[in-house]
Amino acid sequence: MEFKVNSKELEKLLTRVFPAINPRATQQIYENFLFDLQDGVLTVLASDGDHWLKASTRVVSDTNYKGIISAKLLLEAIKSLEETTLIIKTDDKKKFTINWETGEFHLSFQNANEYPDVPEFEIKNTENVNYFTISGKDLKESIDKTAFAISKEEYRPSMTGTLFEFSEDGMRFVSTDAHRLVELLYKNIKIENEAQIVVAGNTTSILSKILDEREVKVYFNSTYIAFVLSDISLVARLIMEKFPDYKNIIPKENEFSLSVNPKSLSQITKRMLLVSSAKMKKIKWDITNEQLDISVEDTDTGSSAKENLAISYKGDAMEIGFNGSFLSDIVNHLTEFEEIVFKLMSNTKPVIVSPTTQKENFEIRMLIMPVRLNG
Amino acid sequence: MEFKVNSKELEKLLTRVFPAINPRATQQIYENFLFDLQDGVLTVLASDGDHWLKASTRVVSDTNYKGIISAKLLLEAIKSLEETTLIIKTDDKKKFTINWETGEFHLSFQNANEYPDVPEFEIKNTENVNYFTISGKDLKESIDKTAFAISKEEYRPSMTGTLFEFSEDGMRFVSTDAHRLVELLYKNIKIENEAQIVVAGNTTSILSKILDEREVKVYFNSTYIAFVLSDISLVARLIMEKFPDYKNIIPKENEFSLSVNPKSLSQITKRMLLVSSAKMKKIKWDITNEQLDISVEDTDTGSSAKENLAISYKGDAMEIGFNGSFLSDIVNHLTEFEEIVFKLMSNTKPVIVSPTTQKENFEIRMLIMPVRLNG
Repeated sequence: MEFKVNSKELEKLLTRVFPAINPRATQQIYENFLFDLQDGVLTVLASDGDHWLKASTRVVSDTNYKGIISAKLLLEAIKSLEETTLIIKTDDKKKFTINWETGEFHLSFQNANEYPDVPEFEIKNTENVNYFTISGKDLKESIDKTAFAISKEEYRPSMTGTLFEFSEDGMRFVSTDAHRLVELLYKNIKIENEAQIVVAGNTTSILSKILDEREVKVYFNSTYIAFVLSDISLVARLIMEKFPDYKNIIPKENEFSLSVNPKSLSQITKRMLLVSSAKMKKIKWDITNEQLDISVEDTDTGSSAKENLAISYKGDAMEIGFNGSFLSDIVNHLTEFEEIVFKLMSNTKPVIVSPTTQKENFEIRMLIMPVRLNG
Repeated sequence: MEFKVNSKELEKLLTRVFPAINPRATQQIYENFLFDLQDGVLTVLASDGDHWLKASTRVVSDTNYKGIISAKLLLEAIKSLEETTLIIKTDDKKKFTINWETGEFHLSFQNANEYPDVPEFEIKNTENVNYFTISGKDLKESIDKTAFAISKEEYRPSMTGTLFEFSEDGMRFVSTDAHRLVELLYKNIKIENEAQIVVAGNTTSILSKILDEREVKVYFNSTYIAFVLSDISLVARLIMEKFPDYKNIIPKENEFSLSVNPKSLSQITKRMLLVSSAKMKKIKWDITNEQLDISVEDTDTGSSAKENLAISYKGDAMEIGFNGSFLSDIVNHLTEFEEIVFKLMSNTKPVIVSPTTQKENFEIRMLIMPVRLNG
């Protein structure tokens, strides 16, 4: 086989699909790209056995070919070159040769028939496949705002992903690790069927890297989801476990309401975390009308910190504790807003956090469990 | 004790001396800053037992005080604050309190009498102390150009430092790890006595971080060296072992001369290193008149690469091997020059590398040992 390609175009293609290469994939063969050259179109596929990310480009070629080659080595080799025309060849000695004006690389390749099967899943409007389109920008924002609350614990698989829930309101993105929860409703979308699927954290992480302003076509059935852009597509295995019934966790009647500037709160929380060396990173809030006293004590080192912050508060005076890292995560994902509201009821009940004024098309709500102040 | 200081001024002071804090210092007490407040001047000292880096600033205070406090925690705490006025206090309960308008930190501190003795060494023009001044910029350049060749092997202590050699030519900086050597002569300097001292790699690394355009006063005897700037000073223990007799290693009569553009050579060498997974990273040069063929073969993976480069060469055709990482280090430290010259004699003798045209005041020469091509 032989084809001609611009080095920077090939670099762009390989860089686009590289995010699906996962050093912790179960099979070593997934360290490779699958090259598929058909009728002048080069398609490169990267996979970890749960994700299949592929992209194509036109090249100058008369031959058809399939082969696999070390992803990391090939990408680094192509990246190291200035812009030039490459002639890429394979020969009988299992050498993959990259030629340019003043030099050449010879890399080893394997036959494509050793590569595991790739699911064919991009069929529109068939009976068991759901389909919708969404703005790439809005999808990326929805994912970036919710994915941080995904659980790292493998023993409850459904919580290691984000729930995509489709209803007449729109599309909900929900993540939780049992200590906190994020629920984002995206309204600007038309969906035919109600449905619930769980998309793995690894999937949203890869997806976030390939999305841009362009519209995305999304297909899913009960096993796979596919995200299709004009130049790249991602197919991913869904998490096959039911997501927890999150609606029952969100309290209906938290009467007390504390409004605060998220940037100021974020900076104070960051300073509190500096002093707290313990695993729990317990931060204490002492809430009275008009003022919030935030403090932390580290019993190991004897260090402590205390700051006050102007708030507007309607409710009973209260002392409440939070895990500082979790609180920090939540507030840091809301700093684009002028003001956020904490809805509280008691220092043992879940607290709801949301912006005072929501953005158009988005409705976001976060929930954090308090921690006990003594003990 | 109590003093008042601007938070950003204190941050600047702490950031300046922090480079001497070394997490691998032998005594845990060196994780702390030593605070010394005398007559309205706050001096902060950081040390690892071999280096003493200190800086001062004026503060508003009536009291004198000495105490030690966790360097990392204090620096992070001060860095996390916006610009504001701080009131810093200590109390009988061993609390170091930092107060500002809306909050406070309480950190633990220890008594200064637990802190090991600090060498007093900054005496000018006494009998056993040598003294000179040098441009901070030139000193930094001299260090940055030579320190990379310092040996990482602890069993020959003198080679873990840079030789400072003073003679009527000027001041020479020499580093070597037995595989390569850098010799830099700095001419724009007046020195009274001939002398040789060895300055540890850790010392030049700290020094490089505090130098700027300003002139530096340098004092040394047989045990210590001190670098004094207007706002900061570094005292360091010298390495007490004799530096190898490097002059005997540098060949006198390497007749063959190969001139090349260092940027092009650097890029090719980088690409060769990508393919070479072996520890030795052996690169082969095939030199003929007007062309250099550079190649690498990786027997483990079966990968290889080959490139050619235009050169101007006077000498016999030759094949010679280099450790690619060492070659890369050398060439990367000469890329500011238009052209560099490799002086060779045979593929078993040291090769000398230098710029075709030296810079004013500097004369730099590097030496690299070839590696055997077979076996």
